Amino acid sequence: MQLVTVGTVAFDRIETPFGKADKVVGGAATYISLAASFFLEKIGLVSVVGDDFPVEVMAMMRQRGIDQAGLEVLKGKESFFWAGRYHYDMNTRDTLETRLNVLLELDPKLPAPYKAAKYLMLGNLDPKVQAKVLDQMTERPALVAMDTMNFWMDNALDDLRKVIARVDILTINDAEARQLSGQHSLVKAANTILAMGPKYLVVKKGEHGALLFSEDRVFFAPALPLEDIIDPTGAGDTFAGGFIGYLAHTQDHSFDNLKRAIIVGSALASFCCEKFGIQRLLEIKREDIDHRIQQFVDLVDFDIELVEE
Amino acid sequence: MQLVTVGTVAFDRIETPFGKADKVVGGAATYISLAASFFLEKIGLVSVVGDDFPVEVMAMMRQRGIDQAGLEVLKGKESFFWAGRYHYDMNTRDTLETRLNVLLELDPKLPAPYKAAKYLMLGNLDPKVQAKVLDQMTERPALVAMDTMNFWMDNALDDLRKVIARVDILTINDAEARQLSGQHSLVKAANTILAMGPKYLVVKKGEHGALLFSEDRVFFAPALPLEDIIDPTGAGDTFAGGFIGYLAHTQDHSFDNLKRAIIVGSALASFCCEKFGIQRLLEIKREDIDHRIQQFVDLVDFDIELVEE
Repeated sequence: MQLVTVGTVAFDRIETPFGKADKVVGGAATYISLAASFFLEKIGLVSVVGDDFPVEVMAMMRQRGIDQAGLEVLKGKESFFWAGRYHYDMNTRDTLETRLNVLLELDPKLPAPYKAAKYLMLGNLDPKVQAKVLDQMTERPALVAMDTMNFWMDNALDDLRKVIARVDILTINDAEARQLSGQHSLVKAANTILAMGPKYLVVKKGEHGALLFSEDRVFFAPALPLEDIIDPTGAGDTFAGGFIGYLAHTQDHSFDNLKRAIIVGSALASFCCEKFGIQRLLEIKREDIDHRIQQFVDLVDFDIELVEE
Repeated sequence: MQLVTVGTVAFDRIETPFGKADKVVGGAATYISLAASFFLEKIGLVSVVGDDFPVEVMAMMRQRGIDQAGLEVLKGKESFFWAGRYHYDMNTRDTLETRLNVLLELDPKLPAPYKAAKYLMLGNLDPKVQAKVLDQMTERPALVAMDTMNFWMDNALDDLRKVIARVDILTINDAEARQLSGQHSLVKAANTILAMGPKYLVVKKGEHGALLFSEDRVFFAPALPLEDIIDPTGAGDTFAGGFIGYLAHTQDHSFDNLKRAIIVGSALASFCCEKFGIQRLLEIKREDIDHRIQQFVDLVDFDIELVEE
């Protein structure tokens, strides 16, 4: 297994100022594994669904190399369900409904081949569950990344801090970085969070791009200005999946390669926003990603002569 | 005169979550001309102040090549005064008080040497006043840039549209671009605004950087992540001043050079935020700007191999 990921596999109901989707396949681990599948042959998916989850979607994911030995299917139960409504700015949203359903019973047990994976992506979940996955690895993976959200900072900060201390890369959004650190300045927030354990911090800013911080370096990747943003749901997870998938493919953990991985993740996230749910991710090919990466190159490219007069 | 600018020269009272400044020198044209003065020998300032405006500040500006033949000083009157309070995010603010004072009497009369300037920057003001300046130019300048704000979109849209149709470059923030165009997508907003007349649109996003749009190209410049943002007042005007100052210095209006000008403007704006009012702009030297530009180069620099497998 080149990469193992844990997270939700779910149904979403999404409302935006420009449209709605009633019951589409979503979930952090769905987006992460689909995005990573552009770069990897074999991904282990650790999650739980009810038997209402469409078998065609599971088959499609298997075809893309997403192994499901770690995906529990609970008979007679319903999959995790989330409903949300985006504000006009498309960068903020309200949760309308959360039905945890099978998620209450998620007690991840890693199949043997998963336990030796070199790359591990802990999708946003109860930090206790994230820790349980980490505990089952027979040896420390070469790289562990994790995502989380403000809910766990509000309700399970101690557990969250324990997991954060054990990972290499933390990916959160700017508001969460400020909350977790108690610092307004993102530079100070990054220093505070890096002191908690991770070697790298990725701050996701939605339509405003992403920042990568290490102890002494910082990199900024823009978001591509899109003609239409249809649905940002899953963009952060798609970003994370593209990021870790590219790293697992290249097996290079240098800062320069992390920068590339950020661009790759940003390119995939930009596709994700173009249609509801996972739809757009299923349409694109590897060459579409390369084409979009070239757009990122052009977007920020400039040359300037510093010594004048 | 290499550059002429019109706009407010004023006093500001500024409150941020981290401090306050009671009565500091501010105003759009102050920031614009100071920022441009790093690149130019001779700048014409068109504005009005009361005789309460400090003579030392006027002398300091003259020393920097900011000519004041176009600056009217009204005896016994008070200068324009603005008071504002920034929210915790430092990206949004409330106006607490506006005393127009002498601004009510601003009826710009350009001194003869100003009328042939090749570069003109119309700072944020009543569009009628901006038009009056443009009308007095004996020949169309090589480049006319203008700034404006939501207030004029709400209260003087017809007049505003008339000026916008006559300029080459419009600089506004993202919320204003959305308001002016009636489009949420910035890509669509840019297309709509460019159809109103300007050849280029610069969308300022504060701590999220800036976008440059032309008919068929787009460029993104990040904002430098700062350890401390003390006071963002004037950052947009400082950006505009650095931008137009660099263009007037290089006299190159190609898209590639506009990109450089955006980076130069962003570098100057980042300094502006480091202290209250114009203070930091008075401390820095040309080599500080070059050093900061190098930080922008490093911030977005990446190389990626597109053809894999």
